[in-house]
Amino acid sequence: MALSEFDLIRRYFTHGARGVTLGVGDDAALVRVGRGAELAVSADMLVEGRHFLKGADPALLGHKTLAVNLSDMAAMGARPRWATLAIALPKVDEAWLGGFSRGFMALARRYSVALIGGDTTRGPLTLSVQIMGEVPPGKALRRDGAKAGDDIWVSGYLGEAAMALEMIGGRGWRGLSRDDRRTLEERLHAPTPRVALGLALRGIAHSAIDVSDGLLADLGHICERSGVSATIEWEAIPAIPLVRAHAQTDSGARGLLSGGDDYELCFTASPRRRAAVMAAAARSRVRVTMIGRIERKARSPAPVTVLDSVGRALKVKARGYDHFR
Amino acid sequence: MALSEFDLIRRYFTHGARGVTLGVGDDAALVRVGRGAELAVSADMLVEGRHFLKGADPALLGHKTLAVNLSDMAAMGARPRWATLAIALPKVDEAWLGGFSRGFMALARRYSVALIGGDTTRGPLTLSVQIMGEVPPGKALRRDGAKAGDDIWVSGYLGEAAMALEMIGGRGWRGLSRDDRRTLEERLHAPTPRVALGLALRGIAHSAIDVSDGLLADLGHICERSGVSATIEWEAIPAIPLVRAHAQTDSGARGLLSGGDDYELCFTASPRRRAAVMAAAARSRVRVTMIGRIERKARSPAPVTVLDSVGRALKVKARGYDHFR
Repeated sequence: MALSEFDLIRRYFTHGARGVTLGVGDDAALVRVGRGAELAVSADMLVEGRHFLKGADPALLGHKTLAVNLSDMAAMGARPRWATLAIALPKVDEAWLGGFSRGFMALARRYSVALIGGDTTRGPLTLSVQIMGEVPPGKALRRDGAKAGDDIWVSGYLGEAAMALEMIGGRGWRGLSRDDRRTLEERLHAPTPRVALGLALRGIAHSAIDVSDGLLADLGHICERSGVSATIEWEAIPAIPLVRAHAQTDSGARGLLSGGDDYELCFTASPRRRAAVMAAAARSRVRVTMIGRIERKARSPAPVTVLDSVGRALKVKARGYDHFR
Repeated sequence: MALSEFDLIRRYFTHGARGVTLGVGDDAALVRVGRGAELAVSADMLVEGRHFLKGADPALLGHKTLAVNLSDMAAMGARPRWATLAIALPKVDEAWLGGFSRGFMALARRYSVALIGGDTTRGPLTLSVQIMGEVPPGKALRRDGAKAGDDIWVSGYLGEAAMALEMIGGRGWRGLSRDDRRTLEERLHAPTPRVALGLALRGIAHSAIDVSDGLLADLGHICERSGVSATIEWEAIPAIPLVRAHAQTDSGARGLLSGGDDYELCFTASPRRRAAVMAAAARSRVRVTMIGRIERKARSPAPVTVLDSVGRALKVKARGYDHFR
């Protein structure tokens, strides 16, 4: 039976959910925002060939599509609650849709996010997700609150997705162990959004961002919005041994600093709050690493300076993944 | 100066707005939903070649992109407040973006809608809008509340966009007067969402939908969700003389009933509320026309029956614009 557009939404994306007065199926969904809470809203578009490869596994893509948006919520210290999903597909492909919705909905359930609406239409494969969450007024983590003297922290490890992207399909890829390849691929395809950490950092971090375009680019955004500079130590950037070794090469170093797709949180906090930061990380079951310090705004055009082990500034090329450069 | 993705958002889409705690520029926007109100959320995706022609005027496209989403809010009786906009573009085209944002933002200002976020990326031209509005709990107009005995109403006139779509570029098009062509094109490219009417119908209409896919299809949705049937009178369907004359032809009749793209409201209400409906329409400065009646659910597979002037059921082909059939 050929599926019509009208059925697709119902079949793959409807499920009962708390806090949803009216779900998929009407002109709009209706939801109740928690009393007094502010609504955090974030949107993302993913295009085949640009954000994911043609032929990407749909379940992994479903996971990642939601994960990158949950990461935006994490960076605000918001509790994700609802999402909408608009999909353009070249043709009805039930196997593909089934896989995609499995990956998407499994992650949604894990984070108690309700899919409340969206659209399906015909076109080149394009995915558009909007996510909405709640945060108490004044408590959101923002990009513009970093203060000179703050410690700079980053969660988890960086560089794995970039290394995977760089090496998959090339000669070096086969030289890696199976375990190593699996590690890198998992981080590329199915990152873990740091929602719990974002929530735990409310009232502690002065600013936060999720590392999606790349550490330098994203930390750079914090600096620009906050009117400050940053100094980070090359050796302190957390990376698994495989990535750290690869970072001896130019491309590996660029990947670690600017490859992006990490979906870790980069945040700043007062040095007096180090214990609180560590406790927040422990509660969220994720490691955090101090990598540098916020300084007053420097004259240098580049907001972020990377220092080697003896304190010399490294020359850094490539400022993160900017689609239109 | 080449524009980066980072600048595009800021240049074309940032503007101060009430009720927006944190606008474009952070990981998410923050907004305050009115005390006690429910949030109505709706999303739509428009693909070049499918929803609009290649080479479509960007300002008109900007208008229509927002208008179709405001129409979803109107159909819920929601007051539209905030929107996000994700755009995939083949390349940076400042003239195009300038035009698009002019059309989009002009309409947004007219309806006091704040653009609070979105995404710009490279890809085949695809637009994804999400709109959020407020409605008092329990007061939203829905698709599932129609009752047997209700009058069926429709706002404005139908069939103009469909006639434009059918005729533009064809032989008949040149045969129309310039004024007629302008009338049809305006309705195709720049429909007026019936937000005021939707608000005015709160507490009066039992159900509502916006006519986007086509009168039969959309009224059919109300019937399916409400568990009822509908009978409408062919002669009562409001159409300007040009469209009514064209509806003598098969394609014209199909366009009027199933062409869609009208963005009028189709709603039902108790016959005892006729005066209230007329008053709501007058307040909203839009005409409304009674076109039929809701009946108990019939055995017939088609939920909507169209009667000619002597009460015979018309055979109707084509059930509205379904992308995947």
